[in-house]
Amino acid sequence: MDWLLTPGPVRLHPKALEAFSRPQLHHRTEPARALFLKARSLLREAFRTQGEVLILTGSGTLAMEALVWNLFAPGERVLVPVYGKFSERFAEIAESAGLEVDRLELPYGRVPSPDQVARPGYQGLLLVHSETSTGAMVDLPALARAFKEANPKGLVGADMVTSLLVREVALEAWGVDAAASGSQKGLMCPPGLGFVALSPWALERLRPRGYYLNLSRELKAQREGESAWTPAINLVGAVAAVLEKVLPKLPEHLALKAWQNDLLYRVGAELGLSPVPEVPSPAVAAFYLPEGVSYRAVKEAFARRQAVIAGGQGPLKGRVFRLSLMGYYNRYEALGVAALFREAFADILPAS
Amino acid sequence: MDWLLTPGPVRLHPKALEAFSRPQLHHRTEPARALFLKARSLLREAFRTQGEVLILTGSGTLAMEALVWNLFAPGERVLVPVYGKFSERFAEIAESAGLEVDRLELPYGRVPSPDQVARPGYQGLLLVHSETSTGAMVDLPALARAFKEANPKGLVGADMVTSLLVREVALEAWGVDAAASGSQKGLMCPPGLGFVALSPWALERLRPRGYYLNLSRELKAQREGESAWTPAINLVGAVAAVLEKVLPKLPEHLALKAWQNDLLYRVGAELGLSPVPEVPSPAVAAFYLPEGVSYRAVKEAFARRQAVIAGGQGPLKGRVFRLSLMGYYNRYEALGVAALFREAFADILPAS
Repeated sequence: MDWLLTPGPVRLHPKALEAFSRPQLHHRTEPARALFLKARSLLREAFRTQGEVLILTGSGTLAMEALVWNLFAPGERVLVPVYGKFSERFAEIAESAGLEVDRLELPYGRVPSPDQVARPGYQGLLLVHSETSTGAMVDLPALARAFKEANPKGLVGADMVTSLLVREVALEAWGVDAAASGSQKGLMCPPGLGFVALSPWALERLRPRGYYLNLSRELKAQREGESAWTPAINLVGAVAAVLEKVLPKLPEHLALKAWQNDLLYRVGAELGLSPVPEVPSPAVAAFYLPEGVSYRAVKEAFARRQAVIAGGQGPLKGRVFRLSLMGYYNRYEALGVAALFREAFADILPAS
Repeated sequence: MDWLLTPGPVRLHPKALEAFSRPQLHHRTEPARALFLKARSLLREAFRTQGEVLILTGSGTLAMEALVWNLFAPGERVLVPVYGKFSERFAEIAESAGLEVDRLELPYGRVPSPDQVARPGYQGLLLVHSETSTGAMVDLPALARAFKEANPKGLVGADMVTSLLVREVALEAWGVDAAASGSQKGLMCPPGLGFVALSPWALERLRPRGYYLNLSRELKAQREGESAWTPAINLVGAVAAVLEKVLPKLPEHLALKAWQNDLLYRVGAELGLSPVPEVPSPAVAAFYLPEGVSYRAVKEAFARRQAVIAGGQGPLKGRVFRLSLMGYYNRYEALGVAALFREAFADILPAS
């Protein structure tokens, strides 16, 4: 399969492939420590935080769980708007961590509004910035502000799994105290690393729990360029190499990602397809399946053209399909994908 | 640095490097499912179990924690012999999981004897097969038998992090119910995956806890070739490729690893060095530093020859050095390393 049009894992950045062709580094040596510190410093820049970014070996879900476990104690009350599969996951993680979770249930595709989270009595608000299952993006700064007006001591934790390096993000400037992300989305690297970004204020409020997930232990080690447990150091090298290339031209990169995702929506509109999200994220374009067309038919029309796409999750399973150019695609490849999208639908919906 | 003589991460198998040069696979596609199932089936063969092997994205420590969390409930009593850094870690993990832990403390370098673990009143025994910090190997079948005679319903959990593919291992035949390992040791792959092998009896006794570490959820997904959370699928491909190459010639491979480690001990003996372990593991050769010689001097003598070695951990820090040929080394490269070892010590201990 040549073109991965899935919203993660994604088509790899050539710098990531290059990093993986190197001989193994041992993580407790000077070259590895320098690489680890470089990756952390670049990630701090990417999350726009004066705090710290911890690199964990595991998936984005592990990073979400680490965030919840280390910032909230059992019995604390958190508000979790649920508007897709990943916000559902945030609520499940908080429940499994023993928190008292108030779910604010919204239909998949919608996003919470500031007045809906402006409710007092909470220690925290957990939000998914870019809800990959529906293609929706929330207004994180406005939601964080509204929540904090009602809960001045509350913490805002965000899932930035598919927004980091795809759309502008900022921790402190947005009132976000902690964020989770991973290597296999906007960073265009293979899966295997999760990141937890912590604002200076969140760092003061760390209440570590667990063993592998104990972020105080990680913090102590990572400040020295090491990690508490053996890290996927090859992948740390890939992340550093990609960030080093992308960050100096971040505005252009984000503009490209926005243009590419708009292009997918423009083609969808030409084809008469209805978008799923109320407010679209640039990470993925999600469309309802046309009446009488199965997901399988769409998937196969793309597969015949060597492209892999994604279906629906949760209540959207069998009702939507999703395309993403979050991976390493330039402007012209995106135009090629647009042509492929049109051709695939010409198979499915022959001209009447 | 050309030669990684550390006991993990290790010099990579060329099949691992080759696997990482491929375009990204999406884990929820047929080719990825087939690869995942192949890796699991080969791992089952490697652990010699009729049960299941779960592949987790994380380090070997994560796999150890998953084993403990999913087989024991808070308040249960486990016996944990402590004879090195990793058996110490097993005890800490069990304590952090809320178990009642009886530590059987032994000096670093020694190994527990069957009569020491033949004590009734325990739900489990946690043992490190190859204690990488001291180079010692325990007699796992004899210890499991002795423990189970005293505790017929007890479970035996083993850390096989540096024994898998380095020395013969077997789950059911040895009376071991669960074992943890990782990708960056005997498997000669980069770090980033942990494995938990579960015997048929352990599978019946799973009592899942946590979210990312919930093995029942993993089991359900992995039986279908998927995983509960995004896996480091590139690394799964590397593991499958290496196992496919090594398993058909496993006896020869284990004989080579044993011969290579013996070679390191023979050279050490020539040089008048004292071995650390009572019973040596083939994963690593650990020697006490000669009187008046610092670890730094030894490390630098190897570094001048482009080789990376390991020092002591815990109470052995500054007192020992460790060399390992667990990675991808053939017979002649091992002889080259033996020559390097002699030369390095000629710098340190000039002929009197």
